Amino acid sequence: MAVYTDVAADDLADFLKSYDVGELLSYKGIAEGVENSNFLLHTSKGAYILTLYEKRVAADDLPYFLGLMAHLCARGVNCPQPQKNRDGEVYASLAGRPAAIINFLEGMWPRRPNVMHCAGVGEALARMHVAGRDFPLVRKNNLSVDGWRGLLALAAPRADTVQPGLRAFLQTELDYLVAHWPTDLPEGVIHADLFPDNVFFLGDKLSGLIDFPFACNDMLAYDVAICLNAWCFEPDLSFNATKARAFLNAYEAVRPLTAAERAAFPLLARGASIRFLLTRLVDFLNVPEGAFVKPKDPVEYVRKLRFHQSVTSMADYGVEVARQPA
Amino acid sequence: MAVYTDVAADDLADFLKSYDVGELLSYKGIAEGVENSNFLLHTSKGAYILTLYEKRVAADDLPYFLGLMAHLCARGVNCPQPQKNRDGEVYASLAGRPAAIINFLEGMWPRRPNVMHCAGVGEALARMHVAGRDFPLVRKNNLSVDGWRGLLALAAPRADTVQPGLRAFLQTELDYLVAHWPTDLPEGVIHADLFPDNVFFLGDKLSGLIDFPFACNDMLAYDVAICLNAWCFEPDLSFNATKARAFLNAYEAVRPLTAAERAAFPLLARGASIRFLLTRLVDFLNVPEGAFVKPKDPVEYVRKLRFHQSVTSMADYGVEVARQPA
Repeated sequence: MAVYTDVAADDLADFLKSYDVGELLSYKGIAEGVENSNFLLHTSKGAYILTLYEKRVAADDLPYFLGLMAHLCARGVNCPQPQKNRDGEVYASLAGRPAAIINFLEGMWPRRPNVMHCAGVGEALARMHVAGRDFPLVRKNNLSVDGWRGLLALAAPRADTVQPGLRAFLQTELDYLVAHWPTDLPEGVIHADLFPDNVFFLGDKLSGLIDFPFACNDMLAYDVAICLNAWCFEPDLSFNATKARAFLNAYEAVRPLTAAERAAFPLLARGASIRFLLTRLVDFLNVPEGAFVKPKDPVEYVRKLRFHQSVTSMADYGVEVARQPA
Repeated sequence: MAVYTDVAADDLADFLKSYDVGELLSYKGIAEGVENSNFLLHTSKGAYILTLYEKRVAADDLPYFLGLMAHLCARGVNCPQPQKNRDGEVYASLAGRPAAIINFLEGMWPRRPNVMHCAGVGEALARMHVAGRDFPLVRKNNLSVDGWRGLLALAAPRADTVQPGLRAFLQTELDYLVAHWPTDLPEGVIHADLFPDNVFFLGDKLSGLIDFPFACNDMLAYDVAICLNAWCFEPDLSFNATKARAFLNAYEAVRPLTAAERAAFPLLARGASIRFLLTRLVDFLNVPEGAFVKPKDPVEYVRKLRFHQSVTSMADYGVEVARQPA
């Protein structure tokens, strides 16, 4: 939530000369993204987002992220379109950092998602999965089951200060997930972070998916499980089966889950819970003193994980049992 | 440089229904303003800035600031136009805070002001002073000579940790300024903070003045002195007489300084220096541990103040002596 690098107007205007985006009229640093500097540009041709990549996202990964967005746009998925410069590149250097320009998507993310929003994101996620099938680049998911042990090691010593017994709970759960994690489900490009603040709507109509820095190749149904966690619980953390039904039915209308995916889904949902539980826990335990940004509550995902532990089949997620193959 | 208060899309859309600004298409928190939350809105009618007033600027002062912008706009000064709601009010309540909508000005502030920029701001400042003549509201300048003693009292105990001898230097200067501060110069509405980041240009052409939270009633020539400090020194803090000449000549082409204003100008410039020196010093000595925002360097204004102490007449500011009345 910051701008780490300022850019002089002259430097930016010079940079834009190598793009076909018109004359610069204004630019504002926007309070989004905790790792990069983002600017909203107005030009004579429209609105764009300029991102300066500050860290963590290595320049090596930019071809994947930016290439994926271009690939998805070309297949009709509403996501930001990376602009190519006159050399045909989707990123170049500005203020000493890799920089990219994407077109600005109008729309607002829903602070209070309703059933229509959940259906919209289900359909869009499935369309993204289908459109990503022939994307040629591959990026490993560093925050899947292999990465969780390292996160737990970081968080374990002080985990019980957040909630008594949390360390043992996480250890037991992680052992179970490692032992049972599926390896034979359909894979492809996943967004891996499709929370409400990454999905724009105009009214109840979805206008775009944004923010792909966690995108990678992994099991498609795991991405569905991440979304279910992010969209289908109420602020009091009760599970909303109506929203889940709308979300899953809309997804399956585009890409039906296989029998194996359905059978594994409660386990994938547990994995999706522990993944966000662990990163939030590490962030929570390592907030710099006097930090401006309030860390997200890890306990929210303890509650979600416990819910999924109680689930026995897709019926518990609100999906009609009749739809399940024998 | 932050957004302190988030606003839900539904709440904002509802709020906008009482304005004639079109349908909401998007809004982004922008990294500007250290005291308020600012959002850039796109609507079906154009772009606007929404400000939620968080503190310091008391709601009591909003009629002055917003009324002044409307007054200046009506007289052809390029500054943001406050939007009135259906009740004719220029501010109302949103997310529990006073909130106002102004139209968005295209343009970029010059990170490296050149002579053309200095001339542009000189002319615009004079036009603002002239246009403000018949503004009916009055607001005292809390950061003029009366306020400086209090600031020095806050900063004095640790002033020498910033620069040895600074405390005595400031005390002596302040005593001198208090004894000699003029009281009979032309007064009116001043911007009081017209630094480069508050002046927008498209190319070399000035497109607008923004950010009026320090606006108040005071000596007009004091505002000129503040601008001279902000625009006519180089990054190495050397005084650039070419820029000052361009700035002052452009100002005087619209509103010539009186003989008394010219005679007092070096003193006013010393006052303008100590005002920013003191507020920066207080901020510098009171940075919260781990704070994200780097405080501005107070020593910059020690250097500027010492320069003005060496000035004997307007000729030292680059203005032709021949132009000075006998």
